Amino acid sequence: MSASVSPLAPKHYPSMPGIQGVRIATAEAGIKYKGRTDVLLIVFDRPTAVAGVFTRSKCPSAAVDFCRASLEGGTARAVVVNSGNANAFTGKKGRESAKMTAAAAAKAVGAKPHSIFLASTGVIGEPLDAGKFSHLLADMVNNAVADRWPDAASAIMTTDTFPKLSTETVLLGGVPVTINGIAKGAGMIAPDMATMLSFVATDAPIAADVLQRLLSKSVGKSFNSVTVDSDTSTSDTLLLFATGSAAERGAEPVTKLKDKRLKPFAKALDRVLKDLALQVVRDGEGARKMLEISVTGATSSRSAKRIALSIANSPLVKTAAAGEDANWGRIVMAVGKAGEPADRDRLAISFGEIRVAREGERDPDYSEAATSAYMKNDEIKISVDIGLGKGKATVWTCDLTKEYVAINGDYRS
Amino acid sequence: MSASVSPLAPKHYPSMPGIQGVRIATAEAGIKYKGRTDVLLIVFDRPTAVAGVFTRSKCPSAAVDFCRASLEGGTARAVVVNSGNANAFTGKKGRESAKMTAAAAAKAVGAKPHSIFLASTGVIGEPLDAGKFSHLLADMVNNAVADRWPDAASAIMTTDTFPKLSTETVLLGGVPVTINGIAKGAGMIAPDMATMLSFVATDAPIAADVLQRLLSKSVGKSFNSVTVDSDTSTSDTLLLFATGSAAERGAEPVTKLKDKRLKPFAKALDRVLKDLALQVVRDGEGARKMLEISVTGATSSRSAKRIALSIANSPLVKTAAAGEDANWGRIVMAVGKAGEPADRDRLAISFGEIRVAREGERDPDYSEAATSAYMKNDEIKISVDIGLGKGKATVWTCDLTKEYVAINGDYRS
Repeated sequence: MSASVSPLAPKHYPSMPGIQGVRIATAEAGIKYKGRTDVLLIVFDRPTAVAGVFTRSKCPSAAVDFCRASLEGGTARAVVVNSGNANAFTGKKGRESAKMTAAAAAKAVGAKPHSIFLASTGVIGEPLDAGKFSHLLADMVNNAVADRWPDAASAIMTTDTFPKLSTETVLLGGVPVTINGIAKGAGMIAPDMATMLSFVATDAPIAADVLQRLLSKSVGKSFNSVTVDSDTSTSDTLLLFATGSAAERGAEPVTKLKDKRLKPFAKALDRVLKDLALQVVRDGEGARKMLEISVTGATSSRSAKRIALSIANSPLVKTAAAGEDANWGRIVMAVGKAGEPADRDRLAISFGEIRVAREGERDPDYSEAATSAYMKNDEIKISVDIGLGKGKATVWTCDLTKEYVAINGDYRS
Repeated sequence: MSASVSPLAPKHYPSMPGIQGVRIATAEAGIKYKGRTDVLLIVFDRPTAVAGVFTRSKCPSAAVDFCRASLEGGTARAVVVNSGNANAFTGKKGRESAKMTAAAAAKAVGAKPHSIFLASTGVIGEPLDAGKFSHLLADMVNNAVADRWPDAASAIMTTDTFPKLSTETVLLGGVPVTINGIAKGAGMIAPDMATMLSFVATDAPIAADVLQRLLSKSVGKSFNSVTVDSDTSTSDTLLLFATGSAAERGAEPVTKLKDKRLKPFAKALDRVLKDLALQVVRDGEGARKMLEISVTGATSSRSAKRIALSIANSPLVKTAAAGEDANWGRIVMAVGKAGEPADRDRLAISFGEIRVAREGERDPDYSEAATSAYMKNDEIKISVDIGLGKGKATVWTCDLTKEYVAINGDYRS
């Protein structure tokens, strides 16, 4: 955890209402960090519908493997998260550690182990001693209360400089339902999945298969459209839980994706995930500026996204942003290296409202002074029109600063 | 040009013999830099066989376009290189600038424009005023002499901290022939091509088509196996010239790739290109350490190279190296994100001779102290065995330091 909060941190934290059927407890187990919470328990009082999206790493953590197996059951009773150790690349010991944690949580809530979901974040390759916190879980279940979302967000932080929270309340067929989400992530952030960890819960009564399809779709324009350093984590886990408690207040269960009542909910879910994803970028390790990169005119949306990510992941684009240098030549470079269809002589590039290049060369009205002034903003918008088709995509990233190097040059020690 | 020379610079520069049929001149044109040479002219007294490999960027520079067209002729009479301006993304003006330079050089040597080869390196997107140096070319042709290879290497530098030179002399059917090469490149270095600029010349009598096949093969294990920052330049150009002058000393012309006399020459060419490519890495912007990354046991060589590059391009691996942190968990991450076949539980990882992980977890004999001590070396070898097949590849990169960010945060200003 860094000493100073990112200058891009939100100015206000939202007030997080409780979600009926969700209780939260945190604990200080001293897994790695001292003097702060490092264990989070989320308890669902009744079997709760669950959906998940995970890292595409070929070397996933033991917790990710465990969650994938649990997800097949489609219902959840608890989530256990620890920070300070990723339990990744820990072999048989790692699997045993995950099993031990799930068994302790299952016993505490009176459920089967595969209704438990796990997540671990921190150093890779160090064995995780589940004995350090599994004995705490029974008490945590007893002490868990509804309104502890901010504490939950804090307990899962690693190099994060601020807790990430978002909430929306919308009507589902006339009945108010709430979506609460938390996230952590500061480095090792890239599609797919660019989240590290995020947990979202709602009281809406939505069937697990519908929930999964909503989540898979929503993630494309949120967590899968942000990158900090192009490095995909072994632990990325996004879980969405629906307790269904709003049914007690008259909300009819949603069992089909086509259900028209779902539309406002789906939009609210999009907003929550995007809000959380952008908070992750705002807390990118060492970040001083947020970059929004929009590509239009590509031959397809997929192509547009690849070009946008090529720009967003370019160290030279990111260091230029850090130096407040309107070095649009590096945007040309990043478009060129993406390997996607592009015609140099049709490219147009804008920084904010300032068009710096068009038809393959510098805009005749280009003003270095105006563009340099724009680069002093905290939030920089870069637009690239490829001029070939209708494909478009937007991604978000942050600048690459000396602080990123400092944070990651001595993270373990 | 940086004030201080890279700590990884070679301790000795080779003595570069002249190549019969090659004359060199440099000039100070003040294109961007002051008080240093920034124009290089290489003159071939007779039509000379030529081969080339260029950037795969979709937005290549005007000079790259020009060279590709010239290459179709298969013979060269001169090369003109300027530093300080890449003449890339300069549209019609850029094409005219290239044409004007080639016309001036062609007139000066008494040849057709498409026997001229061009290269430009520096800032992208700024119009290049060829008038600044095209009037110098006639005098340069007159003053060009054979033994100025070190001057040639200096004139093409941008953010390089030392000139890059390499030479080999071998027997071709009993007759000594020489290969001389120079290169520049410090940032915006990634396969393919990872060179920015390199010019290699030999007096061996080798036909252009044979030369091209030798070059295309040799580049795979040299310039296309190094990366500094994963950013592919718009200007990457590697040209190989064969004057054939050794024929006067009895070397029979080589017209077939299968010619057995070619073997020692091909190996010498490999050594020259690898030497130059590694010098580019040793001069990677801000580099303090060189990393050699060897992947074995992949399902194919192609897969091995992709995994190796995923490791070599990972900001988290590179910052860990900068911090002398034996953070092998990040190697696992980078293997996992490569998208290539890998089985977490078969991975083995070594730093130098120290095996840090095997069968998907930390080696039981792992010593943090020994590994940390190893990380203090200037040159770090990282070996990863995937455990699935026989594919192998080696790539080279450098660490990612605060100096890289500093150099690239204010390069234009």
